[in-house]
Amino acid sequence: MHDVDTTTPSSVTVLGLGLMGRALAGAFLDADLRTTVWNRTAARADPPAGALRAGSAREAAAASPLVVVCVTDHDAARAVVEPLADVLAGRVLVNLSSGTSDQGRELAAWAAAHGIGFLDGVISVAPAAIGGPEAVVLYSGSRAAFDAHEPVLRRLGGGTGYVGEDAGSAALYEMATLSLMWGTLNGFLHGAALLGAAGVDAVSFAPVADRAVATTAGWLAGFAGQIDAGDYPADGSPIDVHLAAMGHLVRESEARGVDAELPRLWRAVAEEAVARGRGGEGYAALVDRYRPGARGRGPAGAQPPVGGSIGPVPAADAR
Amino acid sequence: MHDVDTTTPSSVTVLGLGLMGRALAGAFLDADLRTTVWNRTAARADPPAGALRAGSAREAAAASPLVVVCVTDHDAARAVVEPLADVLAGRVLVNLSSGTSDQGRELAAWAAAHGIGFLDGVISVAPAAIGGPEAVVLYSGSRAAFDAHEPVLRRLGGGTGYVGEDAGSAALYEMATLSLMWGTLNGFLHGAALLGAAGVDAVSFAPVADRAVATTAGWLAGFAGQIDAGDYPADGSPIDVHLAAMGHLVRESEARGVDAELPRLWRAVAEEAVARGRGGEGYAALVDRYRPGARGRGPAGAQPPVGGSIGPVPAADAR
Repeated sequence: MHDVDTTTPSSVTVLGLGLMGRALAGAFLDADLRTTVWNRTAARADPPAGALRAGSAREAAAASPLVVVCVTDHDAARAVVEPLADVLAGRVLVNLSSGTSDQGRELAAWAAAHGIGFLDGVISVAPAAIGGPEAVVLYSGSRAAFDAHEPVLRRLGGGTGYVGEDAGSAALYEMATLSLMWGTLNGFLHGAALLGAAGVDAVSFAPVADRAVATTAGWLAGFAGQIDAGDYPADGSPIDVHLAAMGHLVRESEARGVDAELPRLWRAVAEEAVARGRGGEGYAALVDRYRPGARGRGPAGAQPPVGGSIGPVPAADAR
Repeated sequence: MHDVDTTTPSSVTVLGLGLMGRALAGAFLDADLRTTVWNRTAARADPPAGALRAGSAREAAAASPLVVVCVTDHDAARAVVEPLADVLAGRVLVNLSSGTSDQGRELAAWAAAHGIGFLDGVISVAPAAIGGPEAVVLYSGSRAAFDAHEPVLRRLGGGTGYVGEDAGSAALYEMATLSLMWGTLNGFLHGAALLGAAGVDAVSFAPVADRAVATTAGWLAGFAGQIDAGDYPADGSPIDVHLAAMGHLVRESEARGVDAELPRLWRAVAEEAVARGRGGEGYAALVDRYRPGARGRGPAGAQPPVGGSIGPVPAADAR
């Protein structure tokens, strides 16, 4: 174990030199930080110019007060850091390898047991965008660790943020964000396929799609407020109006031979709400279908609180 | 049958005075157009100030060269207009009642058989937004009819557009747009439910969601170009990277008791592509899964042309 000055805020170690690890190291180097790097397979490691290449993970970890691990996934991250518990003690470990919230919490528990400050983070952009103003990197875990290293972490992106002491939070935000992204993309692809089946090219659809996404995005903040309040006024179209239009989409898709599984699923979600007497509520009320134990839930306020939630349960979730 | 001056471009008739019909009539009146209105149930009809109320649908249709019908759905529209074939002959009928593309085509065929100019249109905004710069109203059918009445039709919204001679096109655009909208909304609701199950409120998610939607929207034009070209370079993450992350989302959802049907469907779409050797392609390649007869399709270029398409088939669709 090397002696290091863990108070130096201007040095950082990056374990893992995949595309993302290299981008992280590059962003640190661009900020003139003393950057030590290591990769499991030395042959594949092509460190950015200016990086200090360590001979071992142990040597790399010992070189900086802040150690970032960014490898294939959480299991790979554990395999890298677990043998380094003694050298990581007293330092801050930031995991940027993808994983579930439970994996983030497990790593946090392991780190806490070894006196290691810990943050579990998620990166929402491609490697090329790292360091830019649009790059969103969210962290959860030790607030003290985040505060101590925020200036360095902020070098990775303008969208750097801390989302909570629960080390699983960042992974959950990432998953929720990806859910929104895949939802949007699959809706777009289904729409493009439907138009394509009638000879309309996707490029003609794109400007209309762009406008539709912007309109839809404009509803999200309002929907979020409704979700937290548990009250869903039908400012726009109520669920039963959506349901009727969903029937058109399913039939239209089937008539063109376009896979209708996705619209059938959306319709099933709306149908269930209408069957429970909630057809007059706004679209955001459908969130209840996705909630734990919510499949059997009736109109707002008609059911007992839902159990099994993790962490603090906001009032809106306990209807 | 009344004698009317069908060359007067400054008068219009609106059949149907539901929320949307009233909004349409209001926008025409705001533009100082002579606006005649009629509603099937006179008692429910509350015409906007300044509108001329006709005693019958026939009388209303006879009052203007341009007749807009906006009722519950296509079937209701046919029930209103079919008895008026003789009086509509030589005029332009615009249907703004919702329906499928086939219903639009059927009404176009009926109109053509009776010497009626016809447009099938779709409105993508709530009644309150009608007449505003953001209101998107798309028309398909007779180009001549659109050109003759475009100045009047444009009063309904800044996003007025003509999308093709095929009278079914507008309905298809509407369906594709709704697919994108429902995709986005369901992804958001699933994400909000996932965070909510861990005690994170939706309002905290909203700004992150907003950023994610904007990022995703930025990809659509590029994806559209790829779809039309039938070539899907993995500029960002290839499908197999998405698939791995989808596995996280499914497990995360299941672990929190959040309904995982939606992420399982997205995963199945990606899994199928990976199983066919397309894991290295960009996300837009998944459009093929939604296309007619595409479930059995292998890597781009490996399959014979897909049959059964309607209308002109662009080169990209004939791979």
